[in-house]
Amino acid sequence: MHKTVTADMIEDLAAGSAFLGTGGGGDPYLGSLLCREAIAQYGPVSLISPQDLKKSDNVYVAAIVGAPTVMIEKLISIRDQHKAVAALEDYTGQQASVIASAEIGGCNSMMPLAYAAMRGLPLLDGDGMGRAFPELQMTSFNIEGVSCTPMSLADEHDNRIIIEAQSAKKTELLTRPLAAEMGASICMSCYPMDGEEAARTVVPHTISAALDIGAAINRRDSAEKPPIERLLSALRRHDYYSNAYEIYRGKITNIERNTTRGWVLGECTISSLEKHDSRAKLVFQNENLTAYVDGELRCIVPDLITVVDMETANAITTERLSYGQRVAVIGCSAPKQINTAKARETVGPGCFGLEEDYLPISQLVGDQG
Amino acid sequence: MHKTVTADMIEDLAAGSAFLGTGGGGDPYLGSLLCREAIAQYGPVSLISPQDLKKSDNVYVAAIVGAPTVMIEKLISIRDQHKAVAALEDYTGQQASVIASAEIGGCNSMMPLAYAAMRGLPLLDGDGMGRAFPELQMTSFNIEGVSCTPMSLADEHDNRIIIEAQSAKKTELLTRPLAAEMGASICMSCYPMDGEEAARTVVPHTISAALDIGAAINRRDSAEKPPIERLLSALRRHDYYSNAYEIYRGKITNIERNTTRGWVLGECTISSLEKHDSRAKLVFQNENLTAYVDGELRCIVPDLITVVDMETANAITTERLSYGQRVAVIGCSAPKQINTAKARETVGPGCFGLEEDYLPISQLVGDQG
Repeated sequence: MHKTVTADMIEDLAAGSAFLGTGGGGDPYLGSLLCREAIAQYGPVSLISPQDLKKSDNVYVAAIVGAPTVMIEKLISIRDQHKAVAALEDYTGQQASVIASAEIGGCNSMMPLAYAAMRGLPLLDGDGMGRAFPELQMTSFNIEGVSCTPMSLADEHDNRIIIEAQSAKKTELLTRPLAAEMGASICMSCYPMDGEEAARTVVPHTISAALDIGAAINRRDSAEKPPIERLLSALRRHDYYSNAYEIYRGKITNIERNTTRGWVLGECTISSLEKHDSRAKLVFQNENLTAYVDGELRCIVPDLITVVDMETANAITTERLSYGQRVAVIGCSAPKQINTAKARETVGPGCFGLEEDYLPISQLVGDQG
Repeated sequence: MHKTVTADMIEDLAAGSAFLGTGGGGDPYLGSLLCREAIAQYGPVSLISPQDLKKSDNVYVAAIVGAPTVMIEKLISIRDQHKAVAALEDYTGQQASVIASAEIGGCNSMMPLAYAAMRGLPLLDGDGMGRAFPELQMTSFNIEGVSCTPMSLADEHDNRIIIEAQSAKKTELLTRPLAAEMGASICMSCYPMDGEEAARTVVPHTISAALDIGAAINRRDSAEKPPIERLLSALRRHDYYSNAYEIYRGKITNIERNTTRGWVLGECTISSLEKHDSRAKLVFQNENLTAYVDGELRCIVPDLITVVDMETANAITTERLSYGQRVAVIGCSAPKQINTAKARETVGPGCFGLEEDYLPISQLVGDQG
């Protein structure tokens, strides 16, 4: 477990959380720029392990909500993040003592780090998803009964909104059109928790996991093996992600993508470079949801599916997928906190309108893997 | 000017504000049921004249936002109105001392009365429009520089929202999709003002005006004349509405209506019962915006256009217009507060996407009238 995030670890966090983001969470490069600037200005950020939280802690989630396609052009800012957290602090009358991530994925694990640096507060080593998901209710916090609201939204024009809703799903339904109206990429703070609630409901140590996975991708653990093998080894060493496989390898030959209701929706076809007539198909809503190979399901949400560059093993977010890229599709198991039968009522295939039943990746590709 | 609204005045207020609502503001019958119940339970409501406000007063607008088509089936409740005002009181830390109407029109002049009764607070004799308009920024309060926010929204499921926005127009843009998501008919409180601001910016004495106009329609001032003549006489006695004309008379032969983005949008064709080939056309967005007779413009927003029953002179709201109704179209001048060149930047024809320039009704039908 890591204790501190320093400037030289930012590229690992970016690479690792881009992988765990399963295609969503926004461009990690933008997030890493933000973090580099923040740590240069305010210093390194200490990580606090969930078991070290005190009941009296006020844990505030800092996050960006919107369509990653928009984030590329409408850059995010720590100032807007502060407006959102400050709005919630004003509303609750409680100052944040710990900053937390809603999801491990691209910008949404980088922004909380940058913001924690600015506030001089520790960052919780953990998150609410253990990966990325596209909707607000899809968190271990919600699955375990923490209220998503009061929640705040803020944009760069000083518009700010407080929502109190009767369910996290309703909060999502209210937030999405607001996010679209506020420019499709805005800052928020939600799931305010005391230390005990956060410790009980968080997916622990995922910031550390992202750092380790990123270090493997960035060839810090062994320069001998090719990047994708290093990535798979790092995943297999980890409790949550240990059932890890290369599902497919090929060239992107088709990509359909729409930015609708604040999300990036679409599908991607990858064709084999070796086997004529073989192809894989991915469906995504910000994040990748299903991976089929030659008509057979190989991985399905909440298990993780990430498209990585064939040479570097760097994750490619869904808004960056494009024709001709040489890629591998990596799938791995999900943390248990988001993969019980109860959890799948909130984050399982049916929650994305998919008709497929969940089957663990170990069963779907275990034989081939 | 009236000092108190008692149970036996509710039908007059309903009829008068339905007329001033120019087709919008929701079904006045529903509003009158609400008021009858509230006054029976809590007693009559005193009216406070704008000049009697003190600087220390906290004037809170109580209103319904949504599509009148939906209000017919999803009934409004004082409890939801209280949730909205209480949310704003909690947020500002200031208790309301006076309740005000955003608009004089159907339910939106009835709900504040019912709510004032429940709270035992005076109702301001005046409103922010001197008629009804479909959007939040279209008020004399906004035209004269009062901020629309902080504003609250509340629904029957205990969802509540606080908005702070940089302009009233932005507040409108944020509110509309929320209203749609919350069921297309919800309660709000906005434009919180001290007594001095309210006195400076309100369109004064429109509750009294609605009571007088309603009394004329309900044949309280003279049973001799036919209802439409009584209505026209009452309007002509009033400062604001004195340029009043019957623009057209006939049978509704076509009605197109869509409930879109939380509004009722459409147009209505009325054919003469006497002159073959003669027809009038009205365009509406909740409220009537333009009236054409045989291709010639006869009245245009912000002047008032209301469709009334040919026999009873009772206003017909846009969601109640239907094929075969025998109607007269009444047009009259608007209060000066919403009809200066400056005001028309906020409530003039261009604000509704109309291409026509504003011309006063006195000029458009003065000769024929």
